[in-house]
Amino acid sequence: MGGIVCVGLGPGDPDLMSVKADRLVRGAAHVAFFRKAGRAGQARRIVQGMLRADVVEHAMDYPVTTEIAFDSADYNALLAAFYDDWTQRLLALAARHDVIVLCEGDPFFYGSFMHLHTRLQGLCPVEVVPGITGMTGCWHATGIPIAWGDDVLTVLMGTLPEADLMRHMAGAHALAIMKTGRNLPKVRRALAATGRLEQAWLVERGTMPNQRVARLADTADDDCPYFAIVLVHGHGRRPV
Amino acid sequence: MGGIVCVGLGPGDPDLMSVKADRLVRGAAHVAFFRKAGRAGQARRIVQGMLRADVVEHAMDYPVTTEIAFDSADYNALLAAFYDDWTQRLLALAARHDVIVLCEGDPFFYGSFMHLHTRLQGLCPVEVVPGITGMTGCWHATGIPIAWGDDVLTVLMGTLPEADLMRHMAGAHALAIMKTGRNLPKVRRALAATGRLEQAWLVERGTMPNQRVARLADTADDDCPYFAIVLVHGHGRRPV
Repeated sequence: MGGIVCVGLGPGDPDLMSVKADRLVRGAAHVAFFRKAGRAGQARRIVQGMLRADVVEHAMDYPVTTEIAFDSADYNALLAAFYDDWTQRLLALAARHDVIVLCEGDPFFYGSFMHLHTRLQGLCPVEVVPGITGMTGCWHATGIPIAWGDDVLTVLMGTLPEADLMRHMAGAHALAIMKTGRNLPKVRRALAATGRLEQAWLVERGTMPNQRVARLADTADDDCPYFAIVLVHGHGRRPV
Repeated sequence: MGGIVCVGLGPGDPDLMSVKADRLVRGAAHVAFFRKAGRAGQARRIVQGMLRADVVEHAMDYPVTTEIAFDSADYNALLAAFYDDWTQRLLALAARHDVIVLCEGDPFFYGSFMHLHTRLQGLCPVEVVPGITGMTGCWHATGIPIAWGDDVLTVLMGTLPEADLMRHMAGAHALAIMKTGRNLPKVRRALAATGRLEQAWLVERGTMPNQRVARLADTADDDCPYFAIVLVHGHGRRPV
């Protein structure tokens, strides 16, 4: 009888994985990870060179990512069936082995594993190991602290309606905006309308060798992958 | 010629320190850390048992913590002089040695080191190693994911005016409220007024052996240390 351990891998640099995550990844006999079909997958890429030679790999290929609208009934049905299916497959594996599920960032912070976690409750032992979030890696890539003193930090998804984005952008001191990609023109308009565009940064692959850090105002709308993060730093109370 | 490396130690469990942080802490010849005068200090406590036998320790004792109002001129002057002083002391040390500054959580997320970081710019090499934030450790302590789908997550300080707390509590799906302590009655009133009190948790020392997780409604106002964190989990879009 084994169990399932979901390991947060952090923002991308393997040296920023926790000591616990590093040990679990290197010792794993079975690993599972989400990926877009046909791609290597970000989680799998982070552990490249760390896995045992005899490891058994289980790639969980999303049936759909951004091809159809995330709020459609079709999307919901496809994803629900996908998570149901992998819940059963991981349970079958965990009956005989320990299974390590690899997740970039922190699994409990907008992570896909949460959909398996809810389904697995009460069915088998499940442990989750925290990781450094991707947004933390991105603010370190800028070299500037994200929030000071009494700053309000708000985390937003680029998928939100423009009016919601604007309301939160106007009310918070520091901002982290995820799920950008094709939502970037909307995010940019909302930042401009609330006077925050000049302070905004676009960060891709923070902490990785090929990280990219740019002023958002200097980037083009069509030059933004889905996983890039927009940041606005806070400048709150500080003794001077 | 040495340099200064500030190491994020994460939420408290030494096993959740990054591989890089673990290596730097164990190899350090000089360590510096903030603490309340007369206390061991949370950062120093996390690395207990990890330091070299011949390490030189530099305790940076805050001249004041919560004894006087944080928005008074006296508080500002005392803290500014304290950070100026330690900037000079660390610079003098770094002229001959590498100095590792120990910080709990992530140093760029409301961390005291940021006040040294700004003062040290251009004066000596400074590196900052990201860590898992304390709030991440706290939501893992509850065993419940903090945010899903399009959830808006807002990070608030209990030191904010009650009206500001209420406005943000009403607008966000998920909440993390830091700097609670004596601000807890105000935080509790604001949560109740916005209909969020029943969903709120109080977490102390998340990921540490003596962690405490309670429904906020079941706790007393006078039973809350400054570093305890209040959490409200989001329940956003999920395929079912």
